[in-house]
Amino acid sequence: MRPDPFMAALGLEVRHLAPGEAVVAGVVGESHLNLHGTAHGGFLYALADSAFALASNARGPAVALSCRMDYFRPATAGAWVEARAKEVNLSRRTATYQVEVVSEGKLVALFTGTVFRLGGDAFPGAGEGVPSGQNSGWEEEG
Amino acid sequence: MRPDPFMAALGLEVRHLAPGEAVVAGVVGESHLNLHGTAHGGFLYALADSAFALASNARGPAVALSCRMDYFRPATAGAWVEARAKEVNLSRRTATYQVEVVSEGKLVALFTGTVFRLGGDAFPGAGEGVPSGQNSGWEEEG
Amino acid sequence: MRPDPFMAALGLEVRHLAPGEAVVAGVVGESHLNLHGTAHGGFLYALADSAFALASNARGPAVALSCRMDYFRPATAGAWVEARAKEVNLSRRTATYQVEVVSEGKLVALFTGTVFRLGGDAFPGAGEGVPSGQNSGWEEEG
Amino acid sequence: MRPDPFMAALGLEVRHLAPGEAVVAGVVGESHLNLHGTAHGGFLYALADSAFALASNARGPAVALSCRMDYFRPATAGAWVEARAKEVNLSRRTATYQVEVVSEGKLVALFTGTVFRLGGDAFPGAGEGVPSGQNSGWEEEG
Repeated sequence: MRPDPFMAALGLEVRHLAPGEAVVAGVVGESHLNLHGTAHGGFLYALADSAFALASNARGPAVALSCRMDYFRPATAGAWVEARAKEVNLSRRTATYQVEVVSEGKLVALFTGTVFRLGGDAFPGAGEGVPSGQNSGWEEEG
Repeated sequence: MRPDPFMAALGLEVRHLAPGEAVVAGVVGESHLNLHGTAHGGFLYALADSAFALASNARGPAVALSCRMDYFRPATAGAWVEARAKEVNLSRRTATYQVEVVSEGKLVALFTGTVFRLGGDAFPGAGEGVPSGQNSGWEEEG
Repeated sequence: MRPDPFMAALGLEVRHLAPGEAVVAGVVGESHLNLHGTAHGGFLYALADSAFALASNARGPAVALSCRMDYFRPATAGAWVEARAKEVNLSRRTATYQVEVVSEGKLVALFTGTVFRLGGDAFPGAGEGVPSGQNSGWEEEG
Repeated sequence: MRPDPFMAALGLEVRHLAPGEAVVAGVVGESHLNLHGTAHGGFLYALADSAFALASNARGPAVALSCRMDYFRPATAGAWVEARAKEVNLSRRTATYQVEVVSEGKLVALFTGTVFRLGGDAFPGAGEGVPSGQNSGWEEEG
């Protein structure tokens, strides 16, 4: 799997790709920093967005509609950062993904994004969103 | 744990509560419907938001800053709906939660919300966000 | 214009409705409060979401995909609250709205929401999103 | 006003900067494209995020907490794109901004972002969020 031009320009590489999931990774370079000297919010987003785009387009052509990025901690120059996208919902016309941005074992940011699926019917999805809670072993009290 | 006035008015009950997590549930009543005859987006959000508020305030006083709600499928009148909140990040001043809204084994909606923690230092958190990916058994390709 | 069942249950009324815009208002009642004694985040969201639903469905049938709610200040019991929805983008298959939640001359919350338009072609939109900046008189420096 | 390293790497320039507002602009280059041959979502976000960061830090040091990006239409290679940030709320500890991404007179994307203000008290804000609706001349029906 070849990265797109923007991913290439940022030195990002595809580590994993399957229908509805993707892992993209890279190193925070000097040219990726903000005024605080840490990874620019736009760089971390571009990393997450790339994993999101790959995961969703692996289901058929899709375009981003709306994305959210929550920032938890800074990533420093030289750090390895990895974005792990998974599908949380797949409908005929839309799909939603979550992407964890991780560095040195810590959750740096969390991305949630929804796409419009251009193909629609032509690419019937497998796995409709199953609540993760079903597998979480939560004991619910009465 | 007693529901707050709005939860009580909507017939919502607390099923589980622990620091950073909560489960709130209820039944979609006739008075909770929208023009399409399914659960109003505001009702489903109120359900998720209640679990979010309980989970976050169980860490000390906190107020909501910014929330996202992704809708995946309708919930019908009479359906049991459940919101399951878990903490994805806990910092000194802010914290972020995800809430799955589930009905009849399906993921109906996904909520992501961030709070400002009024107490700050006074309520040092445990468990800083750990990437779920660490436990996901993903095999990353080179 | 008649409110839907959930709006009616919350005492919300439609104050204005036109293609792509709506105003919905109500009073924060005792049954709409949270644990802090101010308007529940879910109540304020339901208010905004109702204006969003009316504004978007006035373009033809549409369902909510993804919404964001930013909370700025509390609304107290007895306060009049008003949600004003306007269209920021209208495409063939999706549309995006912003809703300001106002009380006593203050911006209490800001809602941004995107719908999927079920009718699609059947309801060709008027006014495609025009940047508000065009009218803002900003002087850009070189 | 000097761009930060990431802005510089993307060829972005600061066109306007004042407390709570900023305009950042650039050209969509070949290295900013996605697989569809249009501006990468991460590039457009980085543009908006840069305006957001400048506008918010012009109030005192601040870090991004949570951002939303809504995509409306593609931007093509060679197009001039401009991000215009304005403040919609300023509180002691947090502030929220909206950024319109415009190209060739069209609204390409809309960004909404919230920061945590590190300085807090030290940088008392001016202009608390005033509803734009107050100036909109909407006639509300009874």
